[in-house]
Amino acid sequence: MNTIEVCFTPQLFALFPHTGHIVVVIDVLRATSSMCVALHHGAQHIVPVAGINEALAYKSQGYLIGGERNGEMQEGFDFGNSPFSFMQDKIKGAKIAISTTNGTQALVAAAKAHKTVVGSFLNLDALCDFLIKENKPIVCLCAGWKNRFNLEDTILAGAIVEKLQDHFRFTVDCDSAMAAKQLYNLAKGDLNKYLENSSHRKRLKKLHIEKDIEYCLQPNLCPVVPIMENGILVAHQSINAEVVPA
Amino acid sequence: MNTIEVCFTPQLFALFPHTGHIVVVIDVLRATSSMCVALHHGAQHIVPVAGINEALAYKSQGYLIGGERNGEMQEGFDFGNSPFSFMQDKIKGAKIAISTTNGTQALVAAAKAHKTVVGSFLNLDALCDFLIKENKPIVCLCAGWKNRFNLEDTILAGAIVEKLQDHFRFTVDCDSAMAAKQLYNLAKGDLNKYLENSSHRKRLKKLHIEKDIEYCLQPNLCPVVPIMENGILVAHQSINAEVVPA
Repeated sequence: MNTIEVCFTPQLFALFPHTGHIVVVIDVLRATSSMCVALHHGAQHIVPVAGINEALAYKSQGYLIGGERNGEMQEGFDFGNSPFSFMQDKIKGAKIAISTTNGTQALVAAAKAHKTVVGSFLNLDALCDFLIKENKPIVCLCAGWKNRFNLEDTILAGAIVEKLQDHFRFTVDCDSAMAAKQLYNLAKGDLNKYLENSSHRKRLKKLHIEKDIEYCLQPNLCPVVPIMENGILVAHQSINAEVVPA
Repeated sequence: MNTIEVCFTPQLFALFPHTGHIVVVIDVLRATSSMCVALHHGAQHIVPVAGINEALAYKSQGYLIGGERNGEMQEGFDFGNSPFSFMQDKIKGAKIAISTTNGTQALVAAAKAHKTVVGSFLNLDALCDFLIKENKPIVCLCAGWKNRFNLEDTILAGAIVEKLQDHFRFTVDCDSAMAAKQLYNLAKGDLNKYLENSSHRKRLKKLHIEKDIEYCLQPNLCPVVPIMENGILVAHQSINAEVVPA
């Protein structure tokens, strides 16, 4: 049985063996949620970039560029980090570059993994089905907040652990998978209410994006698995989808 | 109102402002528990040292030396890391040097704090009384396991948060204090049972030290506050203790 581990912040990621692993990058509010929305709504691909200037450089190449710093949209960007931005008509077929405070940094950190995929509540079941089929050891990498632990990413990691616990085992070094699952179980009755006192929720409150948060906490609205291929996120094509009926 | 924060591993400690803070170093199984035992049983002082050889160097200066690597006693040491070792008659008045896998490393990391104290279930109430009286911002620094999160240190941090929540407030950046408190509340009915599946518990099982673990999970057996003074841990003398009645 392969292992499942949870890493609470990118700063701890080097302590987790991951080169033969599938790494699930998690930034629920809002980077990885918005990435799922964009690919589910037909974006061609997404380039996650660490820096603001790097994102702006993609604009001249015909990319739409999105992202935020400290929750706010940047000058010269087409949109911020709201999942609703990534549902617009212009998303279909578009190439997108995204830079965010925590999420894209975590994606960059995970570059050496066997495979890197993106998780959110929006793609929870599709993601877990994919992970079961792939059957490789898993590390859930929470983006956190500036390298510190946060609750919303942890409870999604806990939801993944709970869904996969019959297929994967905990390692002897990973109490965090257990803790994440326990916290998810405290939260799952009402994720929205559970996170009301979380730090990031309070931080985002100033930005008046309550609707974004409520959207991001809904399960399975975007059944897509964003997967990194040569530094670019695309929607994973399942074997079933590739078989075109005659 | 001052703040209380929880840092899950020494590797994240630099992200926490701490120079004006009291840092509570926590390594429940077994370093900080044993330190409380030793000072409660009359040890003169304890020098926490990071390396094995550094500890051995103290032996020639008349120190008793204790500690472990991966849970096991080291050659040339007077004892390992069992709390029962630190109750022996020879502890009274002794100078002790201790080096352990995680605990002493965390103490060294906390060196720049305003004050550094040592926490365990064994001194929980005495510690919390001290922290309320001192009334400075607090960081609970969990030693973890080789810089990874562990459950036993986290639930002690959660117990401290719960006891101090009317006197201190959470910061906007610290979801970990909230998570620690929630996990403690899941655990507190039966700490021993709660930790049965924890990683460190499984690791220690091989060493046949179940008695040590049961002892370390009992509250308030050693009402002492080990405090760091010039790199040396001594029992904090409360004002009450200093007032000698005429």
